[in-house]
Amino acid sequence: MRMFRNDYSEGAAPEILEALIATNDEQHVGYTEGDPHCARARALIREACRRDDVDVEFCFGGTSANIVGVTGMLRDWEGVICTRDGHINVHETGAIAACGRTVLATRDADGFLSPEEAERVWAFQTGTGRHMTRPAAIYLSNTTELGGVWSKTRFDAICDWADSHGLKIFLDGARLGSALASPAAEDLTLEHIAMRTSAFTIGGTKNGLLFGEAMVIADPALKESFPYLIKERGGLMAKGRLLGVQFARAFEKDADGEALYWKLARNANECAFRLREGLIALGFEPAGDAPSNQQFFCFEAAVAAKFAKLAGCEIFESLPDGRQLTRFVCSWATRLDDVDELLARAAAF
Amino acid sequence: MRMFRNDYSEGAAPEILEALIATNDEQHVGYTEGDPHCARARALIREACRRDDVDVEFCFGGTSANIVGVTGMLRDWEGVICTRDGHINVHETGAIAACGRTVLATRDADGFLSPEEAERVWAFQTGTGRHMTRPAAIYLSNTTELGGVWSKTRFDAICDWADSHGLKIFLDGARLGSALASPAAEDLTLEHIAMRTSAFTIGGTKNGLLFGEAMVIADPALKESFPYLIKERGGLMAKGRLLGVQFARAFEKDADGEALYWKLARNANECAFRLREGLIALGFEPAGDAPSNQQFFCFEAAVAAKFAKLAGCEIFESLPDGRQLTRFVCSWATRLDDVDELLARAAAF
Amino acid sequence: MRMFRNDYSEGAAPEILEALIATNDEQHVGYTEGDPHCARARALIREACRRDDVDVEFCFGGTSANIVGVTGMLRDWEGVICTRDGHINVHETGAIAACGRTVLATRDADGFLSPEEAERVWAFQTGTGRHMTRPAAIYLSNTTELGGVWSKTRFDAICDWADSHGLKIFLDGARLGSALASPAAEDLTLEHIAMRTSAFTIGGTKNGLLFGEAMVIADPALKESFPYLIKERGGLMAKGRLLGVQFARAFEKDADGEALYWKLARNANECAFRLREGLIALGFEPAGDAPSNQQFFCFEAAVAAKFAKLAGCEIFESLPDGRQLTRFVCSWATRLDDVDELLARAAAF
Amino acid sequence: MRMFRNDYSEGAAPEILEALIATNDEQHVGYTEGDPHCARARALIREACRRDDVDVEFCFGGTSANIVGVTGMLRDWEGVICTRDGHINVHETGAIAACGRTVLATRDADGFLSPEEAERVWAFQTGTGRHMTRPAAIYLSNTTELGGVWSKTRFDAICDWADSHGLKIFLDGARLGSALASPAAEDLTLEHIAMRTSAFTIGGTKNGLLFGEAMVIADPALKESFPYLIKERGGLMAKGRLLGVQFARAFEKDADGEALYWKLARNANECAFRLREGLIALGFEPAGDAPSNQQFFCFEAAVAAKFAKLAGCEIFESLPDGRQLTRFVCSWATRLDDVDELLARAAAF
Repeated sequence: MRMFRNDYSEGAAPEILEALIATNDEQHVGYTEGDPHCARARALIREACRRDDVDVEFCFGGTSANIVGVTGMLRDWEGVICTRDGHINVHETGAIAACGRTVLATRDADGFLSPEEAERVWAFQTGTGRHMTRPAAIYLSNTTELGGVWSKTRFDAICDWADSHGLKIFLDGARLGSALASPAAEDLTLEHIAMRTSAFTIGGTKNGLLFGEAMVIADPALKESFPYLIKERGGLMAKGRLLGVQFARAFEKDADGEALYWKLARNANECAFRLREGLIALGFEPAGDAPSNQQFFCFEAAVAAKFAKLAGCEIFESLPDGRQLTRFVCSWATRLDDVDELLARAAAF
Repeated sequence: MRMFRNDYSEGAAPEILEALIATNDEQHVGYTEGDPHCARARALIREACRRDDVDVEFCFGGTSANIVGVTGMLRDWEGVICTRDGHINVHETGAIAACGRTVLATRDADGFLSPEEAERVWAFQTGTGRHMTRPAAIYLSNTTELGGVWSKTRFDAICDWADSHGLKIFLDGARLGSALASPAAEDLTLEHIAMRTSAFTIGGTKNGLLFGEAMVIADPALKESFPYLIKERGGLMAKGRLLGVQFARAFEKDADGEALYWKLARNANECAFRLREGLIALGFEPAGDAPSNQQFFCFEAAVAAKFAKLAGCEIFESLPDGRQLTRFVCSWATRLDDVDELLARAAAF
Repeated sequence: MRMFRNDYSEGAAPEILEALIATNDEQHVGYTEGDPHCARARALIREACRRDDVDVEFCFGGTSANIVGVTGMLRDWEGVICTRDGHINVHETGAIAACGRTVLATRDADGFLSPEEAERVWAFQTGTGRHMTRPAAIYLSNTTELGGVWSKTRFDAICDWADSHGLKIFLDGARLGSALASPAAEDLTLEHIAMRTSAFTIGGTKNGLLFGEAMVIADPALKESFPYLIKERGGLMAKGRLLGVQFARAFEKDADGEALYWKLARNANECAFRLREGLIALGFEPAGDAPSNQQFFCFEAAVAAKFAKLAGCEIFESLPDGRQLTRFVCSWATRLDDVDELLARAAAF
Repeated sequence: MRMFRNDYSEGAAPEILEALIATNDEQHVGYTEGDPHCARARALIREACRRDDVDVEFCFGGTSANIVGVTGMLRDWEGVICTRDGHINVHETGAIAACGRTVLATRDADGFLSPEEAERVWAFQTGTGRHMTRPAAIYLSNTTELGGVWSKTRFDAICDWADSHGLKIFLDGARLGSALASPAAEDLTLEHIAMRTSAFTIGGTKNGLLFGEAMVIADPALKESFPYLIKERGGLMAKGRLLGVQFARAFEKDADGEALYWKLARNANECAFRLREGLIALGFEPAGDAPSNQQFFCFEAAVAAKFAKLAGCEIFESLPDGRQLTRFVCSWATRLDDVDELLARAAAF
C-alpha cells in the first residue's frame, strides 16, 4: 500500500519520466532560453490560460518561485498581506525577509485571505505614513495551506479588494492542479486566474513532475524583472530544457483532449475524496472542509499514531483537547486500491 | 502652556545645549573614535553600569540603534521574538526585514514579552527544523510601547527564559530614563540590565539630548560586529564628538551626586504622574497602568478632540466602543505648571 | 593654529549654532514633517534650485543619504556604475551591498566617472542578459573623492551618456558647497544639477552645519520611495526640526544677498587655494589638480610625518616611490591666518 | 556530431538516468532528510573525502550553492576575496550582494587567486577599520573560470595565506570532476580539499548528473547554518531523494573500483585534450593553458564564426587585435569521434 504522507514522495509520473528519457540525449542551449521544449511549454501554458500576452518563466522549486513572485512585486519598504498560516509566513524560513521584504499576516484562521482582514491590515499599516511597511501586494495560495479551494466568487472578492487598493496579486499554485480540478473551484479557471492576478505559479513538483514550477506573469510591469530575479535568487536551471520538457508534456492535450496535468490532479482528488468519505463512514471526524488532495482529521492520540505508522501521514498539531490534527495527502501516484486498503485496515483499529 | 504631544518636541535640555556650545569650536577626530568626549562618555556609562568590561558605542537615532542591535544578534536565518506591538514590529517600516532578518511576534497585548508567549513562539518555530525561522534573540523595550515599566522580577523572569533557551537579549532603552526613574522599576538598575542583556540602548533623544543613543554591549561575541554595523547601516556620525559631549554631560554627576540624565527623567515622570492623578480626579478613565512619562486615557471622541487641540496629544486608536485611546507625553521640558494649567482647562470641558 | 585634518573636525558654524539655540525651546511635530523650519528649508532649497517641483528630504548623515539615494534608484537585480575610488565603493563598509544592490566600479583613476569607462562597464554588464547585474544608475560625487570639481561641460557629458542609456543619475554632494563655489565649476549651478540628476544631496556636515544632508529629488518616480527609505534605513531624525532649522539658516539670503552656505564654502576654498600656492612656492609637489577645499601633496616620508604632527593632516597612501600622499582639508572654520602660520612653520622644515 | 557548446547541453549520463528510473516509484521522506539514498550519497562522499566528520548537504544548482557557501561564511559587514573574473563576481547577477554581502575582486587576470593580490586587497580593506568591508573568506573555483586547474602546490599556497589571515575558504567545484581528473591537478585530491577548505561543492550538473551540487562542510562553525540557508535561499528540493539517488550512483565504485563521477570527468578531459592538440596541429592558437574540459582559442573573426556555426562553441570576447576568444567545451557526453569529426571539418576551413 502506498503511503499518504505527501504528494512529493515519489519521483515523476510515468509520462513525464518518459518525456525526460526521450529527450535526454538532445543537446540544447541552457537556462530555459532558446530551446524548443521551453518554447513549446510556454506556448501550451499560454494556450491553457487563453492568453497570448502573458510571459511564462520556469523555476526549479516552490520557495524559489515564491521568493521571485512576492519580492518582485515589492519595493524595499513595501509588504505583502497574507494569512497567518501562509506558506511564506511560516514554512519558508523567513525567505521573504531574507530578501528584505516584510510579510504582513492577517488573523484569518481558515487559510483564505478575507477582504475584511486584508482591509484591517491595510488600514493599520497605512495609518502613520512612512513609519510603517506599506502593503503593496497580496499573497494567496490555491489550494490553501489547509487544503481549501478558492471558488470563483471568493477569489473575485479578494481580487476586487486588492484592485480597489492598487495592490498586486500573487497566487502560489504549488497545488493549483488539485485546486482547479476540485468541484469546489466552481467555475474558477486558469484563464480567470491569469486575468486577475499579477503573476501566479503552476506547480509541477506536487502534481507529477519530477520538479518545477511555471510562473505566469500577466502584469507588464513585472515582465522585465522576473527573469533577472530568478537568476539572482538562485532559481534558474542550467539545464532549463528539463522544465520545458516536463511542462510541455504536462500541458499538451492527450488524444482525449485533456492535458495530463489535469488528469493527474483529478486522480489525486478522487482518491482523497474517497478516503474522506470512507474515514467519515468509519466514524472519524474530519477537520474542516478540504475539497482537494489533502485531508485533515482529528484523531485521539492513539489512533493518530496508528495512522502515522500505517500510512505515513503527518501529525500537524496537538489540539487543546488532546486530539491530534492529522493530514493525509493523495497524489497523482495514489490508487483507489491504496485508499481501500487503508480504509480496510482502519476499520480494524 | 507646553504641549503634551511627545518627548522629542523640543531641542535639548539647557545643560546639554550648553555643553555643545562650550565645545563647539574644539577640533576632534571623527566617528566617535579618539576624541576625549566620547572616551569620557564611555567611561561614565561604564561607571553607571558598574562594569569595566562592556563596550559602549553611539548611534545617532533609535531606529538606527535597533537595526544594529537586533540584526547584529541574528544570523540570516534567525529571528527575534517580540510582542506584537513591539516598535521593531510595527513602527520602523520593516527595518529589520530590510536587513534580511525576521521579527517573530507574540500575542502579548500589554507590551510586556511574557515567558509563556515566548515559549509558544519558540515551540512553534522550532517544530520543523530548518523550514522555519529559528528564534535567536528576544527584543524588549523599557518603557514598553504602551508606557509600561519592567520590574526587576518581571525582567528576570523573561531573561531567565531567554537564557534557558540560549537566546540573546536586546533591550531598547529609548525611554530607559523614564523607566528606571519610575517607582515601578522596583530595584531594576542599569547595572542589572547590563548584567543580564547581550546589549541595550540608553536613549538620549527622548530624555533631553539633542539626539543620540548609547549602545551598551556586554556580550563579547557582539563587540567586534557592532562598530562595523553602525557604519554599514548608516548610523555613524562624522562628528561623533557630538554624541560624546552630550552623553558625558548627561552621565557626569552633578554637585548633588546625581547625573542629569536621571533628573530629567524624574521630572518627566513627576509631571506625568501629576497629570494622571489630576485627570482621574476629574473623572477621566486611564487606559492601563503606565507608571512612566507616557499616560494613556480613553475619552469620548469629542473630549479627545478637545485634548488634541489643547495639548497636542495624539489619538492612538479608535476603540470598539467609539472612544479614543489618547496619549499624553511629558518630558524633561514639561513643568508642573504646564500640568496644572492643562488640568485647569480640562476641568472646564 | 587650527588643524587641517578634516572639514568635520569642529561643531557648527556660529550662525548655525545660533539658529539652533534660538529655536531650541520651541515645540514641533517630529520627523521633518509639519514643522515650519523644515517647510522653510524646503522652500529655500527649491528656490536655490530654481525649481518648484523638486521634493526635498533630510537625512542626518552622508552614508545614510547615499544608501537611500543609490538603492532607491535600483531594483534588486540592478547596479550602480561609479569610479573605483567612489565613496560608496570603498568607504562605506559595503553599505550598498548590505541593502542588496551591486556597485559596478570603473577603472577611472582620477575620481571622475568618464563616459568611456561607463560605456565599457555597461557593454560588459549587458552582454549576457539576465546573468549579470544590469546597470540602472550612475553615482557621481562633487567634489570627487580626490577633491576634483566637475565643470559643466564634463558633467553634461556624463549626464548625456547616462540619459542615452536610460540610467538614473545620483550626485553625492557631501562637499557640494566647495565644488560649486570653486572657479573650476565654471558655470555649473545648483539649478543645472537639479535639472540633470534624478536626485542629489546638498551636504551640511562638511560645510558648517552641525550635521545633516538635504536630498533633492527631481525624478517623479523616486518621490514616493525616498521618504519611506529614509525611515526604513534608519536615517530619519525624530527631532527633524533640527535639520530644518540648520538648512533654513544656511540657505536664507543674508543682507548682502548671498546665503551663508556659499560663504562658508568660499572661505574653505580660499584657505585651501592659499595653502596650495604657498606649499608650491615652498617647493612641495601637489598631487593632481584639486580646486576645492581638499589639497593633496606628495611628500618625502619625513616631511609627511612633520605635516601630520603639525597640522593633523592625513596620510592617504604610500606611493611606489616611497613618498606619501598627504591630504590637507580646509573648512568653513579655517582662517587665512591658520594657513599663513602653517606655511611659516613649513618653511622651517 | 555533438556540439561543443557546453557541458550542460544534454540531460543525464545513462547510468544516472537509470538510477533515477529505477527508484522513481519509491516513496521517500522529502528535503534530503531521512531517505536512504541521500544517506548513502552522504556516506559515499564522506568516504571519497576520507573524512567521517564532514557534513554533506545538497543543492539543486550552482548559483544556489554559491549563495549558501559564500554568504554563509560572512557576517553582514564582511566580504569575500575573489578574482575579478570569479563566477560570483561576474556571472550571477549580483547574487552575493543580493544577500547583503560584498565581493572584493582582485586584479588576478588568469583565473587563479594569488596570495599577492589577496594580500593587497586585504591590506587595503583593513586599513581604515570599520569604514571598509572586512575580508572574511576567499572564493576559489576549480576549474577556474578560464578552465585552469589548481595544482596542490598552488592551492596550498593560497590556503596557507588564507589561514594566516584567519579567513575561511570556499571552493566552487562546479567543474571539480574535470579539475581533479586532470594531470595538472598533480596530487591535489578530494581528501586534501576537504582538509583545507571550510566548505566546497562537488558539481553534478556539469559532470553527468541531471542536476545537483553536493556541498561538503568541514568547518564545524558552518554546519548548523548551511541547512537553514539552503532552505531560506530557495535551494532545497522537496524531492531531495533525486539528489541522493544521483550522487550515490556517481560516487559508488563500479566493478573496476572507480566511481562513475571520475570516469565521466576523464572522458570530458580526454576529448578536450585531443581537441586541443588537433587544433594546434591545424595551426590554430590556443589561449592560455587550460588542462581541463574547456578549451579556449583565438581565431580570426571569420574562423570563429565557422566554429560557432559548426560546433556551437561560444565566442567569449573580442580581443583588441580583432580576433575572437572562442570556447569549446567537452563533456561526459562527448565522444572522441565527435572530436575527430570536428577536426576533420576544421582542416577544411
